Amino acid sequence: MTPEELMALAAELFPIPRSITGPGARETLEVVRRRIPLDVVEVPSGSPALDWTVPAEWSVREAWLEAPDGTRLADYAENPLQLLGYSVSYDGVVSRDELLEHVFTLEDRPHAVPYRTAYYTERWGFCLAYDVVRDLPDGDYRVHIDTTHHTSGSLSYGELVVPGRSDDEVLVSTHICHPLQANDNVSGIVAATALAQHVLSAPRELTYRFVFVPGTIGSIVWLSRHRDAADRVRAGMVLTALGDPARFVYKQSRRGGRWIDEVVPAALAAAGVEHEVRAFDPYGYDERQYCSPGFDLPVGRLSRSTHAEYPEYHTSLDDLSFIDGASLAASVGVLEGVVDLLEHDRCWRSTSPYGEPQLGRRGLYRQIGATIDAKARELALLWVLSGADGSTPLREVAQRSGLEFAALRDAASLLHEHGLLADPALPPA
Amino acid sequence: MTPEELMALAAELFPIPRSITGPGARETLEVVRRRIPLDVVEVPSGSPALDWTVPAEWSVREAWLEAPDGTRLADYAENPLQLLGYSVSYDGVVSRDELLEHVFTLEDRPHAVPYRTAYYTERWGFCLAYDVVRDLPDGDYRVHIDTTHHTSGSLSYGELVVPGRSDDEVLVSTHICHPLQANDNVSGIVAATALAQHVLSAPRELTYRFVFVPGTIGSIVWLSRHRDAADRVRAGMVLTALGDPARFVYKQSRRGGRWIDEVVPAALAAAGVEHEVRAFDPYGYDERQYCSPGFDLPVGRLSRSTHAEYPEYHTSLDDLSFIDGASLAASVGVLEGVVDLLEHDRCWRSTSPYGEPQLGRRGLYRQIGATIDAKARELALLWVLSGADGSTPLREVAQRSGLEFAALRDAASLLHEHGLLADPALPPA
Amino acid sequence: MTPEELMALAAELFPIPRSITGPGARETLEVVRRRIPLDVVEVPSGSPALDWTVPAEWSVREAWLEAPDGTRLADYAENPLQLLGYSVSYDGVVSRDELLEHVFTLEDRPHAVPYRTAYYTERWGFCLAYDVVRDLPDGDYRVHIDTTHHTSGSLSYGELVVPGRSDDEVLVSTHICHPLQANDNVSGIVAATALAQHVLSAPRELTYRFVFVPGTIGSIVWLSRHRDAADRVRAGMVLTALGDPARFVYKQSRRGGRWIDEVVPAALAAAGVEHEVRAFDPYGYDERQYCSPGFDLPVGRLSRSTHAEYPEYHTSLDDLSFIDGASLAASVGVLEGVVDLLEHDRCWRSTSPYGEPQLGRRGLYRQIGATIDAKARELALLWVLSGADGSTPLREVAQRSGLEFAALRDAASLLHEHGLLADPALPPA
Repeated sequence: MTPEELMALAAELFPIPRSITGPGARETLEVVRRRIPLDVVEVPSGSPALDWTVPAEWSVREAWLEAPDGTRLADYAENPLQLLGYSVSYDGVVSRDELLEHVFTLEDRPHAVPYRTAYYTERWGFCLAYDVVRDLPDGDYRVHIDTTHHTSGSLSYGELVVPGRSDDEVLVSTHICHPLQANDNVSGIVAATALAQHVLSAPRELTYRFVFVPGTIGSIVWLSRHRDAADRVRAGMVLTALGDPARFVYKQSRRGGRWIDEVVPAALAAAGVEHEVRAFDPYGYDERQYCSPGFDLPVGRLSRSTHAEYPEYHTSLDDLSFIDGASLAASVGVLEGVVDLLEHDRCWRSTSPYGEPQLGRRGLYRQIGATIDAKARELALLWVLSGADGSTPLREVAQRSGLEFAALRDAASLLHEHGLLADPALPPA
Repeated sequence: MTPEELMALAAELFPIPRSITGPGARETLEVVRRRIPLDVVEVPSGSPALDWTVPAEWSVREAWLEAPDGTRLADYAENPLQLLGYSVSYDGVVSRDELLEHVFTLEDRPHAVPYRTAYYTERWGFCLAYDVVRDLPDGDYRVHIDTTHHTSGSLSYGELVVPGRSDDEVLVSTHICHPLQANDNVSGIVAATALAQHVLSAPRELTYRFVFVPGTIGSIVWLSRHRDAADRVRAGMVLTALGDPARFVYKQSRRGGRWIDEVVPAALAAAGVEHEVRAFDPYGYDERQYCSPGFDLPVGRLSRSTHAEYPEYHTSLDDLSFIDGASLAASVGVLEGVVDLLEHDRCWRSTSPYGEPQLGRRGLYRQIGATIDAKARELALLWVLSGADGSTPLREVAQRSGLEFAALRDAASLLHEHGLLADPALPPA
Repeated sequence: MTPEELMALAAELFPIPRSITGPGARETLEVVRRRIPLDVVEVPSGSPALDWTVPAEWSVREAWLEAPDGTRLADYAENPLQLLGYSVSYDGVVSRDELLEHVFTLEDRPHAVPYRTAYYTERWGFCLAYDVVRDLPDGDYRVHIDTTHHTSGSLSYGELVVPGRSDDEVLVSTHICHPLQANDNVSGIVAATALAQHVLSAPRELTYRFVFVPGTIGSIVWLSRHRDAADRVRAGMVLTALGDPARFVYKQSRRGGRWIDEVVPAALAAAGVEHEVRAFDPYGYDERQYCSPGFDLPVGRLSRSTHAEYPEYHTSLDDLSFIDGASLAASVGVLEGVVDLLEHDRCWRSTSPYGEPQLGRRGLYRQIGATIDAKARELALLWVLSGADGSTPLREVAQRSGLEFAALRDAASLLHEHGLLADPALPPA
């Protein structure tokens, strides 16, 4: 996708009133399904999932708040962010003081409407700009919230499996539950969709599984139903906040030092983009679930601006103006680099490991007076052969040699064609 | 014990004429026994102990030295430090030159009387200030040393076992053989006694064994008679020189990287005191024996000023004025911190390791609008759960998280109460 | 050998017209054989060797090049470097342009004749100074090259095995195929010869095997015929470029961290010479073959100026004036230090590992008033005993202690004589 196409998809997704269940999530998946052949799975409310239970499905018929003088202070139809996520119904007149117990604002960002939810509790409430709330007069406030928590509803998630030559899987997960949040949500959905298109565009060695899930409960539901798939995950990434121009942040998987923890920083370095690598911590997105100690999957997280570290986070300021097509495209570029490494970073084994094979008689050696390029190609051949002990990933050979991964990848292909390398093994996950 | 009580005990112990055997060591153990229920063990002279033999018990009836003019230059009754430790008897008149072959002084610290011993050889001698010796005239010096080396005597050591819920042991060892040395000896005895009182003050998870032994031969005797106990030692410390205000020095066990080698520096850091960590070397106190390659126990050494690195070391200058109650109390505080870590640094295992357990329905999750404290407590819960893989010590989780150990310890307790953690395991020793 | 003797040997070897086969290599081995009892092995051309085949033996009857005016521009009899190594025969008259396709020069070092070869291809050619070639007029150039590639010839290499008490082997390899190159070739032959004399001068614990082989094909031939010997190699070095005064460069074996990779830097440090340690790369000399992943021998490389990093490399500038006796002698001194470590760096095991053995009753402990030397010796005894756990190499004990290896080596001998140490084991290769 071009930067323009990426932004067009973002714009289409942005206004959908998403939550962890309900029509917004379903509509989101529909939009994605117009780009990639996603399966949409519905899991009935009340279903057990690991230590959790799938919640009732939430839908909003109407929700508004009127000041004593009849001014509409909030209206879900206008701005879904103004309703506390999963708010229960309420209809009545309350005093200013009573109201304020149900209103969320951000005193330090007075123009911004905060994004707040009340899953797994029974509350009603509104989210408003502090500027709106500050000078509200005493008087009678009219509250009308008409929502339903359907116990016979369902939770929706999307899944796309792109089979490769091997059953070993790469898991790509993004959440689909934040309404009207451009960076912290829409950008992750867009990047995952674009990456899925890229993966679909050619035959692959590995199997790629993309999951579009509501945060926390969605990954828990997916894990509860795919314990076997989890066993096949050799590498994975949670994608979020990839639309703004900040430097990249890669958060390692729980134990660190896994394959993905080497591959993503290598791809970031190869892309020449500014980036930071952080150790795992148990706070964040669905990596919390994938990396819970029982599963302990090799799943890291790639983002740019990081949750709770930028003022626009979880407010109405995280709108489409906060992200841009160039940043999205750069993010997708890095992800394609990750796929390239996942596809080609292998532990090769030489079929002629005793002494160097004679490259000359195979036409693989530079002739006298060869160019610098020829010498570099020859060096790449020697490095690949020297590392072809069956246990050294090609990426590590690249690091030791100081040569580019692409040069070693091509050298390995050439040697493989000439029968000097046996079929390779995946690096340990 | 208050700083005053610590100094009172030090003052009571200081003047006792200790040696590796004999009445001084016995009296020392009696003083300690008035504070903690120590067993005193007598091991007959001549008993084999590993590669050694328990020496004859030494006692001194009288020992003095007179100048030609009848001035008393040394008198054991006045100052036991003046007699070479384990000196044999001698009665006679010697010339100045003969005398000087038997006199030890410190030319660079001319006011100080050195502390010297002659275990395992047959010598007589005196230790004097260089100022006293420098201008001695020629003439007849009267030497009178009346000592006994009782081959039917014994070596005395003290031992206190404080049983915990588990048989796994913590060994605390201090030496009791230096006469009139405040920092290098008395402070260690005082600190070990105060720590024993602390350990006795509450039920404990681990079993604590305190040994009060004469240096080298005492620990060798103890090891020779407790090979089984040594097998149960999961952590240990040699205590010495803990009464002066210098920064702390922790000397690692032989191989380093053992549990105790992590715990003591963590306790020092938590206490916010200046400290230094040093690798093992085979010179020092009884850690030499505990860490000999056959036993190779996880026993480190905690001290402040380190042997042979301060001018007062092993001289009459290491007197009660060199130590102080505040420094002793700070040392005991660090030791209590070590015990706290030994008691609570455990490898927890989650009973709900697949995905995060739902803290909300257990009332463990902050509600909307929770305070910063509540968020910190929630973070501690998440870190403990994430680390609860059965092999990560809680102390390491604390280091990774940047949270205080106490916060994680309390979070672990809470999760354990709610059945989310199984009974924990000790970290590997 | 004295610096003068080393230079005399270098001067004797320098002018020999070496190549990978033929009379020059044979004469080189003869010169070495006058110093050490080398076996010379002849391997028939056409013999298979791992992935290679022993090439036809090359000999040169005559080779010269005349300018249109009859000036001799090149003459093998005068300077063998001027003929492209392994050049095929050619007799004829060529134009200037045709000639230049067969002439090698160095534009950036216009006075220097490059050293070039064309093994495993069929070419004729000359190597000339750029100064000579630059202004050549058009006209008829007379080329006369009369060489033979004897398919019934052989490849020659030299081998000397110095048996030690143990079958475990140290491999020392140097190449013998560069004509008129003082540092990059002669210096290595000289250093290996001097080291062999040193090894022969006393009984040895280990078996030392010196191989003098033509580059690449020689080590491949040797490996193909000594797979069993390769299994016994516990440490090895490729020697080259040891005659100039540059700092030393030690190139680690393929995986690094092998015994030799610790020993050579320790010897360099002990010698107090400037040096650099580099990770393995698959470009260089015969370490490429010894370290190929199938063999993966613990073989490093010691040199001073490193191939392709100095302007004299592989040109006529690398002549006898580029090397000197003092540098050669310093190199041999380092190599003797390596042998000393290989002979004495052992994993000792205490026969009295439980507690310290009582050194006093064995007369091994300082008496009262001992000197500083005695204290240092006692420290060495304690360090050796503390490290005598059967798995810690003495060299590592030296590093930890800060004491000189020689002090620990002597302490270990003394303890061994007193029965306190059992026979030692070699460190893992």
